[in-house]
Amino acid sequence: MAGRLLASGVELTVYNRSRERAADLAAAGAAVAGEPAEAVRGIDGAGTADGAARTDGAGGAHGAGIAVTMLSDDAAVEQVALGAAGLVSSLPAGAIHVSCSTISVALSRRLAAAHAAAGQGYVAAPVLGRPEAAAAGKLFILAAGAAETLARCGPLFEALGQRTFVLGDDPVLANTAKLVCNFLIASVIESLGEGLALAERSGIPAPQCLEILTETLFSAPIYKTYGNLIAAGSFEPAGFKLPLGFKDIRLAIAAAEAVEVPLPIASLVHDHMLAALARGQHDLDWSSFVRELPRSSRQPR
Amino acid sequence: MAGRLLASGVELTVYNRSRERAADLAAAGAAVAGEPAEAVRGIDGAGTADGAARTDGAGGAHGAGIAVTMLSDDAAVEQVALGAAGLVSSLPAGAIHVSCSTISVALSRRLAAAHAAAGQGYVAAPVLGRPEAAAAGKLFILAAGAAETLARCGPLFEALGQRTFVLGDDPVLANTAKLVCNFLIASVIESLGEGLALAERSGIPAPQCLEILTETLFSAPIYKTYGNLIAAGSFEPAGFKLPLGFKDIRLAIAAAEAVEVPLPIASLVHDHMLAALARGQHDLDWSSFVRELPRSSRQPR
Amino acid sequence: MAGRLLASGVELTVYNRSRERAADLAAAGAAVAGEPAEAVRGIDGAGTADGAARTDGAGGAHGAGIAVTMLSDDAAVEQVALGAAGLVSSLPAGAIHVSCSTISVALSRRLAAAHAAAGQGYVAAPVLGRPEAAAAGKLFILAAGAAETLARCGPLFEALGQRTFVLGDDPVLANTAKLVCNFLIASVIESLGEGLALAERSGIPAPQCLEILTETLFSAPIYKTYGNLIAAGSFEPAGFKLPLGFKDIRLAIAAAEAVEVPLPIASLVHDHMLAALARGQHDLDWSSFVRELPRSSRQPR
Amino acid sequence: MAGRLLASGVELTVYNRSRERAADLAAAGAAVAGEPAEAVRGIDGAGTADGAARTDGAGGAHGAGIAVTMLSDDAAVEQVALGAAGLVSSLPAGAIHVSCSTISVALSRRLAAAHAAAGQGYVAAPVLGRPEAAAAGKLFILAAGAAETLARCGPLFEALGQRTFVLGDDPVLANTAKLVCNFLIASVIESLGEGLALAERSGIPAPQCLEILTETLFSAPIYKTYGNLIAAGSFEPAGFKLPLGFKDIRLAIAAAEAVEVPLPIASLVHDHMLAALARGQHDLDWSSFVRELPRSSRQPR
Repeated sequence: MAGRLLASGVELTVYNRSRERAADLAAAGAAVAGEPAEAVRGIDGAGTADGAARTDGAGGAHGAGIAVTMLSDDAAVEQVALGAAGLVSSLPAGAIHVSCSTISVALSRRLAAAHAAAGQGYVAAPVLGRPEAAAAGKLFILAAGAAETLARCGPLFEALGQRTFVLGDDPVLANTAKLVCNFLIASVIESLGEGLALAERSGIPAPQCLEILTETLFSAPIYKTYGNLIAAGSFEPAGFKLPLGFKDIRLAIAAAEAVEVPLPIASLVHDHMLAALARGQHDLDWSSFVRELPRSSRQPR
Repeated sequence: MAGRLLASGVELTVYNRSRERAADLAAAGAAVAGEPAEAVRGIDGAGTADGAARTDGAGGAHGAGIAVTMLSDDAAVEQVALGAAGLVSSLPAGAIHVSCSTISVALSRRLAAAHAAAGQGYVAAPVLGRPEAAAAGKLFILAAGAAETLARCGPLFEALGQRTFVLGDDPVLANTAKLVCNFLIASVIESLGEGLALAERSGIPAPQCLEILTETLFSAPIYKTYGNLIAAGSFEPAGFKLPLGFKDIRLAIAAAEAVEVPLPIASLVHDHMLAALARGQHDLDWSSFVRELPRSSRQPR
Repeated sequence: MAGRLLASGVELTVYNRSRERAADLAAAGAAVAGEPAEAVRGIDGAGTADGAARTDGAGGAHGAGIAVTMLSDDAAVEQVALGAAGLVSSLPAGAIHVSCSTISVALSRRLAAAHAAAGQGYVAAPVLGRPEAAAAGKLFILAAGAAETLARCGPLFEALGQRTFVLGDDPVLANTAKLVCNFLIASVIESLGEGLALAERSGIPAPQCLEILTETLFSAPIYKTYGNLIAAGSFEPAGFKLPLGFKDIRLAIAAAEAVEVPLPIASLVHDHMLAALARGQHDLDWSSFVRELPRSSRQPR
Repeated sequence: MAGRLLASGVELTVYNRSRERAADLAAAGAAVAGEPAEAVRGIDGAGTADGAARTDGAGGAHGAGIAVTMLSDDAAVEQVALGAAGLVSSLPAGAIHVSCSTISVALSRRLAAAHAAAGQGYVAAPVLGRPEAAAAGKLFILAAGAAETLARCGPLFEALGQRTFVLGDDPVLANTAKLVCNFLIASVIESLGEGLALAERSGIPAPQCLEILTETLFSAPIYKTYGNLIAAGSFEPAGFKLPLGFKDIRLAIAAAEAVEVPLPIASLVHDHMLAALARGQHDLDWSSFVRELPRSSRQPR
C-alpha cells in the first residue's frame, strides 16, 4: 500500500515497528521515522506500510495531512494511535487518521471518540484483498466516517484501491463490514474443507471436484484460491497466518455478541482454529484449520 | 428438461406420478403414459419431465433407447425404477436409464447393480441449476457411468445442459458430487444468514452489505440469488421447498457417514432446518431455514 | 441377563448368532438352539443372551411363552424377528416378544405391527446398565406395551432388573426413552472431555478436577465412570464399542428428525465420533470419541 | 455468605455497591461502609455480601485481616480491588484478599500480581452452590493461593462452606476449576433441554422422562434442579440471570482460548444464549436459553 502511494507521487514518511521492514520503502523514496510521532511531524510527510504516516500530496484533494495505519491487531493500533507518542497526541487538529487495520468494533469506537476529542478526523477504512492485490492497487476499500473527511481521503483511496464502498458516518460500520467479509471467507474455507473431504474419501479427486465447483455455481475467485490451497494441502508459506485469522474470527464473534447475534459457523471455525493451534499450526496459513484431506481412493469403505 | 428434449426434436413419451403435470408437455408434442412401463414401451418413445421415459432420437448417438428419470426423492425413484411396473423390469436389455434425481449414494449403488443384472445401462446424471436454467438448457450435468454408455447419452446431455462433467465409471461418483454441491449451497445460505444478521443488527442494511459482498470477493451468482432472498425475507413461493433441501442435507450426511467424514456445517444446517420445520415452514423455500433477519437499526444496542 | 433368568429358576433355551457365545449358558443349564425358530419351539423353553428365546417359567405370571431378544442393532433384530425362521413366523399366537435391544423407533413400530398381525404380543423393554449391572440383576428396565402384556412380563423383569419404568401402551415410547438416555450419556462424555481438557491444559490434573466434580454437583456415578476412563485415556478393552455408540447417536438423531426436534449436542457428538472412526478407533470404547486429553502442565502457555 | 460470617461470631464491616442491599446485614450486626477502603479500615472490621470487607475474627486462625469480595463480574471486581479507593491501595501489607467472584483467569492473574506487589496476600476462592446453599453454609469452596495464606483462611472457609478443595499455589487454578464447573452445568442444561424436547414431542411427558433419568443414571441433584425448571418452563424468578450465565460461558471460552482448548459445547451454549438474549430473556433464569419445550402429544407426527 505504501508502494502504491509512492508510485502515485505522494510524499511519504513511514514508520514500522520492525524498522528493517521499511528498507524497501526507503529505497523507493520514503522517509523513515523512528516513532509514530515523528512520522506525522511536519506537513509534507506522508503514508506508511505497517505503522503510522502522514500523507500530504503535492496537490489535489489530499493536500491536508492524513496519517494511515495498517497494523496487525488491536494492541498494535492501540499503541500507535493511543500510546504516549501516538497519533492522537501527535497529529495537529484537522488532520485525519485513516485506520486500515482489521480491528475490533470496540477499539474503533474508542479511536473515533479520542480523535474527535482532539479535533482530528478519523476514518475506518479496512481493505479487502491479499498482498498481491494491494501491490497492484486492486484492493477494495470499505470506508466510513464523516462525509467531508471521507471526501478529503478520496485521492488516497484512488491510489490504493479499485473501488471504495462508503458505509456511512459511523466509522465502526466499516469495521463491522470487514469482519462480515472475513467471517464469510472463513465459512468458505470450512465448507470447502468439508466438501472436498467428502469428495476425496468417496473417490473424487479434490482438484476435479474443485473444478466442477468453480466452473459452475461457485465461480467467485475465493473458492479457487482457497480450494487450491486445501486440495494441495499447501499451507506454507502462509499468505495470512492462522493466529491472525483466529483474531479476526474472535473479533467477528465479539462484534456479534455486542448486538446479540449468534454466528454458529464462526463458533465452529473458532473451535477448529483452536484445535489447529493446539496442533502447533501457528505459522501456517489460516486456511490450515481445515484438517488435511483424507487421501483419495477409488475404493471407499 | 422434457421441454428442451421436445424442442430438440426428440420423440418423447412422458410419465408423471401426477398425471395433470404432463398436460403442458402433451400440448408440446409428448405422448403421455399412465405408468413407467408404458412410457418405455416400444422403441421410438422417449423422455420425461417427472417420471420415466425413453428417448429414441431420430438419429445420432442416442438412437438407442434411453429412459430419463427426474424425481423428488429416493422413495419415488425406488418405485419408478425398482417397482413392479418399473424400469428395471420394463426396459429391454441394452437400454439405458439416466437418473437425474438427487438421490442417496446407497440407492444409486442398488440401481447400478439391478440394471447391470438386467443387462441394462445405468447412468447417474444429476444436474445443477434452478428451473429457469433447465428451461433454457443451461443446466450443468454431473455424469458418471460406463464410458460407452455415457457416449450414447452425449446428444441427450447436449440438449439439456450447457456443460457435462464426467466423474468416472462408477455412477455413485456423480451422486456424491451433486451432494457436495448442494451441501456447499446450504453452507452459503447459512453463512449469508449469519453474516447479514450481524450487518443488519449493527446498522448496515442487508442489501448494502450484500452489494459489497457480491461485487468484491463473493461474486458467484449463488451469493446474489440467496442473498437477495434472505435480505428480503422472501421465502414464498418456494423455488425449492425446505423438506427437499432437508432431504439433500440428510443424504450428504449419510454419504459422509459411509466414508467416515464429519461435515460439521451440514450438521448445523440439519439442526437449523429441523427447527424451521418445527416452526411449520414446510412450504417455504429451503433458504428459509435461515431465521428472519433482525431489523436494521442505526442505533445498535 | 440369561444368567439371571437361569439363576431365578426359569427354563431357558438360548440362541446366539455366534453359537460359541452360548457355551457358558449351556454349562449353566440352558438348552442351546441353532436358530431362532428352534429356540421358541415347544412351550417350556425360555430366554436368551444374544438372540431369541422363549421363557416359560415353572409358575407365576409368566407361565405364558415369552421370547426375549437382546441384539446389537436393527439389522440383527430384523433378521431374528422378521426373517424367514424368525420370531414373527415361529411364535404361537398369544406368545410375547420382549425386545430389549436399543433399536430404531421405526423398526420398533414395524415389529409392533407385525406381531399384532400375527396375534402375538410385543413389548419394547430396553435396559439401562453396563454388563456388571446386568449380571447383578441391577438393570433398569424401560418398558412399554399393552398393559396386560406387560403384566405377564412382570416376573421376568423382576429377575432381570432392580426397577421397571412403564412408559405406556405404545412400545416405541420405551425405545425413545432409551435413546434419550444414551444421548444424555454421550453428552456427559463430550462435556467431561471438554472440561477435563481445559483443566489439564490449565494445570489442574484431570483426576483432581474429576474428584471436585463428582464430590460436589456431579455426583451421579456416570460422571465417575466415564470421567475415570477419560482421565486415564483408558479406552481398551471397550465396555461398549464406538460403532455401537455411533449407531445409538444416529438412532437418537433419526428419532428426533421424525418429530422435528433438533439435537445440536447429538450432532456434535455424531461428528466427533465420525472423526474418531476415521482415525481407526472402531475397537475402542465409545467414550474414546473424546480426544486424548492434552498432558497436564503447571506452565500452561 | 455475610450472614454466615456474622452468625459465626465474626466482626464484619460490609460494603455493597448498592447500599440498600446491606440493610439486612446491618440489622444482623454488621457495620456498613460507604466505600471499599472504609470497609477495610481499622483492624477489627470484617466481611461482605456483595462488595469488599475485612474480617478480623476475635480469635482463631483468621485473626489477621481478611477482605472478602463476592461481585458479579470482572468490571466490578476491577473497580473494587484495583480502583482508586480499592483493596490493593487500602489493605495493609500482610492482609489477605479472598476473591470469591467468578471472574476471568486473566483478571485473577492481574490481581495476584497487584496484591503481591503491595505485600498483600491473595486467594481465589470461588464457590459452588445456589443462594440457599450459601445461607445454609453448604457451599463448596474451590480455593487456591500460597499455602500459609490459605491456612489463615481456614476458619473463614469453615464458616462459609461444607468443604474446601485446594487447587494449589496459583490462584488462577481455582478460577479455572470454577469455570469448568459452570461450563458443565450449562452442558447439563443444554442436554436436558434437547433430550426432554425429544421425549415430549415423542409423547413422553417431560416430568416422566425426568423421573426416569434422575432415578437411574443421572441422579446428581443438578439434573433434578434444572430438569424441573425446564420441564415446567419456569424461568422466573431467576435464580441466576441469563446475562450472568452468558458471562461465565464467555469466561470459560476465554480461559480455554488461552490454553488452546476448543470447547464445542460451550460454543453451542454461547450461541443459544445469544439467541435467547436477542429474544429479550435478560431477566429470566440462565437455564432459559433452552427453548420452551414443544407440548407433549400422544400423536407425534
